[in-house]
Amino acid sequence: MNVPDQPLDLLVVAPHPDDAEISVGGTILHCRDQGMRVGVLELTDGEPTPRGTPERRAQETAAATKVLDLTWRGNLQLPNRRLEHTLDARHRLAGAFRLLRPQIILAPYWEDVHPDHVAASAMVDAARFWSKLSRSDIPGEPFWPEKVYYFWSIHLRIHPKPSFVRDISAFIDRKMDAVRCYESQMIEGRSTDHPTVLDDIRDRARYWGWTIGRPFGEPFASREDIGITDFRHLV
Amino acid sequence: MNVPDQPLDLLVVAPHPDDAEISVGGTILHCRDQGMRVGVLELTDGEPTPRGTPERRAQETAAATKVLDLTWRGNLQLPNRRLEHTLDARHRLAGAFRLLRPQIILAPYWEDVHPDHVAASAMVDAARFWSKLSRSDIPGEPFWPEKVYYFWSIHLRIHPKPSFVRDISAFIDRKMDAVRCYESQMIEGRSTDHPTVLDDIRDRARYWGWTIGRPFGEPFASREDIGITDFRHLV
Amino acid sequence: MNVPDQPLDLLVVAPHPDDAEISVGGTILHCRDQGMRVGVLELTDGEPTPRGTPERRAQETAAATKVLDLTWRGNLQLPNRRLEHTLDARHRLAGAFRLLRPQIILAPYWEDVHPDHVAASAMVDAARFWSKLSRSDIPGEPFWPEKVYYFWSIHLRIHPKPSFVRDISAFIDRKMDAVRCYESQMIEGRSTDHPTVLDDIRDRARYWGWTIGRPFGEPFASREDIGITDFRHLV
Amino acid sequence: MNVPDQPLDLLVVAPHPDDAEISVGGTILHCRDQGMRVGVLELTDGEPTPRGTPERRAQETAAATKVLDLTWRGNLQLPNRRLEHTLDARHRLAGAFRLLRPQIILAPYWEDVHPDHVAASAMVDAARFWSKLSRSDIPGEPFWPEKVYYFWSIHLRIHPKPSFVRDISAFIDRKMDAVRCYESQMIEGRSTDHPTVLDDIRDRARYWGWTIGRPFGEPFASREDIGITDFRHLV
Amino acid sequence: MNVPDQPLDLLVVAPHPDDAEISVGGTILHCRDQGMRVGVLELTDGEPTPRGTPERRAQETAAATKVLDLTWRGNLQLPNRRLEHTLDARHRLAGAFRLLRPQIILAPYWEDVHPDHVAASAMVDAARFWSKLSRSDIPGEPFWPEKVYYFWSIHLRIHPKPSFVRDISAFIDRKMDAVRCYESQMIEGRSTDHPTVLDDIRDRARYWGWTIGRPFGEPFASREDIGITDFRHLV
Amino acid sequence: MNVPDQPLDLLVVAPHPDDAEISVGGTILHCRDQGMRVGVLELTDGEPTPRGTPERRAQETAAATKVLDLTWRGNLQLPNRRLEHTLDARHRLAGAFRLLRPQIILAPYWEDVHPDHVAASAMVDAARFWSKLSRSDIPGEPFWPEKVYYFWSIHLRIHPKPSFVRDISAFIDRKMDAVRCYESQMIEGRSTDHPTVLDDIRDRARYWGWTIGRPFGEPFASREDIGITDFRHLV
Repeated sequence: MNVPDQPLDLLVVAPHPDDAEISVGGTILHCRDQGMRVGVLELTDGEPTPRGTPERRAQETAAATKVLDLTWRGNLQLPNRRLEHTLDARHRLAGAFRLLRPQIILAPYWEDVHPDHVAASAMVDAARFWSKLSRSDIPGEPFWPEKVYYFWSIHLRIHPKPSFVRDISAFIDRKMDAVRCYESQMIEGRSTDHPTVLDDIRDRARYWGWTIGRPFGEPFASREDIGITDFRHLV
Repeated sequence: MNVPDQPLDLLVVAPHPDDAEISVGGTILHCRDQGMRVGVLELTDGEPTPRGTPERRAQETAAATKVLDLTWRGNLQLPNRRLEHTLDARHRLAGAFRLLRPQIILAPYWEDVHPDHVAASAMVDAARFWSKLSRSDIPGEPFWPEKVYYFWSIHLRIHPKPSFVRDISAFIDRKMDAVRCYESQMIEGRSTDHPTVLDDIRDRARYWGWTIGRPFGEPFASREDIGITDFRHLV
Repeated sequence: MNVPDQPLDLLVVAPHPDDAEISVGGTILHCRDQGMRVGVLELTDGEPTPRGTPERRAQETAAATKVLDLTWRGNLQLPNRRLEHTLDARHRLAGAFRLLRPQIILAPYWEDVHPDHVAASAMVDAARFWSKLSRSDIPGEPFWPEKVYYFWSIHLRIHPKPSFVRDISAFIDRKMDAVRCYESQMIEGRSTDHPTVLDDIRDRARYWGWTIGRPFGEPFASREDIGITDFRHLV
Repeated sequence: MNVPDQPLDLLVVAPHPDDAEISVGGTILHCRDQGMRVGVLELTDGEPTPRGTPERRAQETAAATKVLDLTWRGNLQLPNRRLEHTLDARHRLAGAFRLLRPQIILAPYWEDVHPDHVAASAMVDAARFWSKLSRSDIPGEPFWPEKVYYFWSIHLRIHPKPSFVRDISAFIDRKMDAVRCYESQMIEGRSTDHPTVLDDIRDRARYWGWTIGRPFGEPFASREDIGITDFRHLV
Repeated sequence: MNVPDQPLDLLVVAPHPDDAEISVGGTILHCRDQGMRVGVLELTDGEPTPRGTPERRAQETAAATKVLDLTWRGNLQLPNRRLEHTLDARHRLAGAFRLLRPQIILAPYWEDVHPDHVAASAMVDAARFWSKLSRSDIPGEPFWPEKVYYFWSIHLRIHPKPSFVRDISAFIDRKMDAVRCYESQMIEGRSTDHPTVLDDIRDRARYWGWTIGRPFGEPFASREDIGITDFRHLV
Repeated sequence: MNVPDQPLDLLVVAPHPDDAEISVGGTILHCRDQGMRVGVLELTDGEPTPRGTPERRAQETAAATKVLDLTWRGNLQLPNRRLEHTLDARHRLAGAFRLLRPQIILAPYWEDVHPDHVAASAMVDAARFWSKLSRSDIPGEPFWPEKVYYFWSIHLRIHPKPSFVRDISAFIDRKMDAVRCYESQMIEGRSTDHPTVLDDIRDRARYWGWTIGRPFGEPFASREDIGITDFRHLV
């Protein structure tokens, strides 16, 4: 795994290539626009899928990376579809956190129907804790990612109360551009009847935007309460 | 108040003309399509508003009534903006329930920022109870509306877990037609920038449709648990 | 595992023989009465127990199967008391879903004190997802069970808000007949003081019936919101 | 209003005669058995009803009072069906609290469909606060009832999570005796088909008993957290 | 009511003098430190109390106003202890909002045991809505306070999940100074045993600080979801 | 593992030495004071940590044991930091339950950021169930621990609604004495700025005390509803 020359500000942990774009593409773009150093770490290569190949998926991912203007992107090469929260997988993920040193982690929400997402969510929690351990054999220096926020996936149609919604209005078109890079997943062989899977993604962002009186938004959950220092920071 | 020749199947109680269209227009259209006898009872005339007059609002309401193909529509003529859950208002509403005899009532949700909506919600609960009282001076025969379900309004951007979502996919366009009848409220003087107030209404229906895997939906809350008799009735 | 000649409409996944009868016996009977093709898949043989043997439990199960008039019943032969959500167990369960092809799955609720039930619940979620995968080595054709609803067990005295309650009033006596088939589990050696374990089962159905204004009911949870198309479908 | 010679330990505030028996009859009997001084204060006489008269209702109430072995019972003579949380009603109720000086108040839960119950619940909260005010014109000495717990009524089929359930197993039969005293309300003209209104009351107590592993129970809600000093006090 | 020469940024609506200091004193100080224009509007004069007089309470309020360095403070002179959400009181409060024109309102939480607080909370919601009405007889120009957040009081020991917690660590001592100005309420005649009422106030701020990893905090609830534009704004 | 000569009344299951003291030290002291037989079972030795060694941690644990006046203390010697809910670990824990035979178990809450705590919580639930199994190879006689209550840890700053709060006011100082025994964990190398980790522990007990109107308290969650037999048992 190549290592960025400086610590990241934000790291998105995604089970498969395209999850980051679908769930937090707008947030990534906004953070990059704010000058934050943003990375995405996929846990698996996401293949096989009906129309994907590892090569094609990698090309699509590279294209999306460009659209998102990511500071860093990597893949932990854990087994797709068979992702399990083992001690070994936790160890590898904790090692990645130590190399990337993100202040904030975005992780999949803990309730989902895709077993890889459920495993990924638990793995992030545990690896974040391991990342700070001293006197361990995890590579790199002990490091505590300050915050972890959870994003909703598209596999389960739930909507728990978010801890906050992020305004992504200025970035919805580029978010959709990034999503569309995954042609093998999002477009090819998919029904073109309204609403398409792309419509679903855009329309949900529209809804979350509505909840905060903005055109588009992306929701996040936090286990802990949210602290603020200035009312004017709230939309 | 004119009285329908037969009991209604469904009565929507709306604080102001346009609330029924905005919140449950699709449901009304679907119920009419299913052959149900559907009425709307407004509690006030909704005026004054920045661009409305009682006459204009009445014309808009009449146009929307036609689009919705309502079986019955009436107005309790309680004071707009000053709606209060008094015993007298409760008495009048209970009397209306006895005349209209609906099996199901749709009422505003109990949490809202518009005080007329908050008052209307409590008033429906109480009047429904009074409607069944024997030995009272309420006109008409004692009658118990079997069910009351609550709809969200647009004044407060909340989304409590609904008890169920109704599929209105086939009726979204006519719903929006009905909403657009209220030109003085929805269009004139309103910003035409995206998202407009009309976009908000349509896009929220899109979201609730997504929650049940359908193009468009409208959500409802019930205080009591929902009972069913056939799994195949569920979307 | 023998395979039904046509896809099932409904499949109950039960950790042990008797769980289906206890938790959803009335629902099964009602669905059969409605002409639905209903199966029960046990994950383990449920033995050992204080007074059971595999042979006796199998006979009791056969008797209950007759009372329930099941279309199909099978057993995945996973280890009783030691049920774990492994990739192998998931694989076998996903294969069963592909052979049985049920539109609806009923599964144990995710919070329980019996570890087999906790494991079974997670396993159903994951296997349902795997069932739809293309390009896998799971036997059978990819298949997506449309719905999964969760039932309460008797080991933990909790009562989260159900997504809906099913009216089983006409089937309570036959449900109890089916439960009583498990003499080694429900009757032999059990206290005969009121309330017996059989009283508990019947009385809880009475309570859930009360919640929907009916004599008897069985509650279900859904992770996703419930969609409907007709108010008159609701009890 | 006659005044007990010593302060009460427990006061049940009931909108109408029969509410105390239905909702907390077992608790009252148990508290009396424990030597507590228990009173019931009705806010209205509960009439008219389809088959009641004030005289008959009073006789029924007297009979139930005997079954419950109450220390004290009174009636605030506020208007039945038209109960409102006015400052005057609050004043009268606060005065009653000062005369009766109960450590614990049992009041109707705040969510209900009977408007008298909703009003009664808010009135108890406010009157309890007023009861402690110094320098007021409320008769009697300032007094603060330490605790208020809320009971469910039978008009709304809800079941929020209770703060605790009280074991009433030894008192279920006498509770039902007390309920049956209200012949004009519970028996006369009521359907005798199973489940009768009496069955409903008994069966719900059965359910709540089940939740704590006992034959019969009655549930209570508290706005504040429950404090304990000994684990062995918990069932 | 005197009117500030410029619109306020933040207005605290408090039922009685001392509520603002107790619940949001730290927040007020922090906002003033941030250069925001902050006002406090009491609805009543808070008297009588056991040791207060209107004159003394006014002096205490003036002293606290100085400690808080408020931009503006006023009193609506509604009746203490008898506060009711009447149309007239709503009208007066809406008029105040139009004169003060705050972007943000802080109001009492809707669940409380002090009836004045319950009334105040509902009154703020309704008056905020009325404040924006055109074509009304409310003095001043239509104005919509963008946000309302709710603060916990000390009368009810509840702790619903806050929407956010504000870090007030740098202002805890001055907050306590402001609270102590109310000598007639907080100190005189109060028990000096640990924990005193002052300890309670400080210790709760300590707890809420802990929830966000800071020394001291004050919690707020919002009916609507919270929107943000920058992760780095979150503590 | 040495075995107490009589069954325990209460067993605290703690992932690491110091967890029991931090979370339920006051409760342990109070129960001992009430004459209950109280044990603590650690699952791991808690090492390595930045300043601990197994020997030093053992000495600190012994010192705390003395302060707590424990009836029994043991360690299951499962792997620290790598605790997993395996069948083998479950087997060992179930065996311990059979030897110790506690009526009540206190276990870590199921939501935490420390993976050992998450594993420990699930392991207790499952081992408690296994403990009652007949015809198994688990050593000892079948035994059902009647109750399990969950305690919050310090790793995650959450505060779900507790089922009850235990008054520990008389034991706060000795609780803190017990916590301070873990010098390698709580004091050495820790920041001495306010609030220290010791302040955090004491101040949270202060908060929970406030919730029940007492100086200090410790909160507990129960999956099942709480049953009581006497109102006067409640604080």
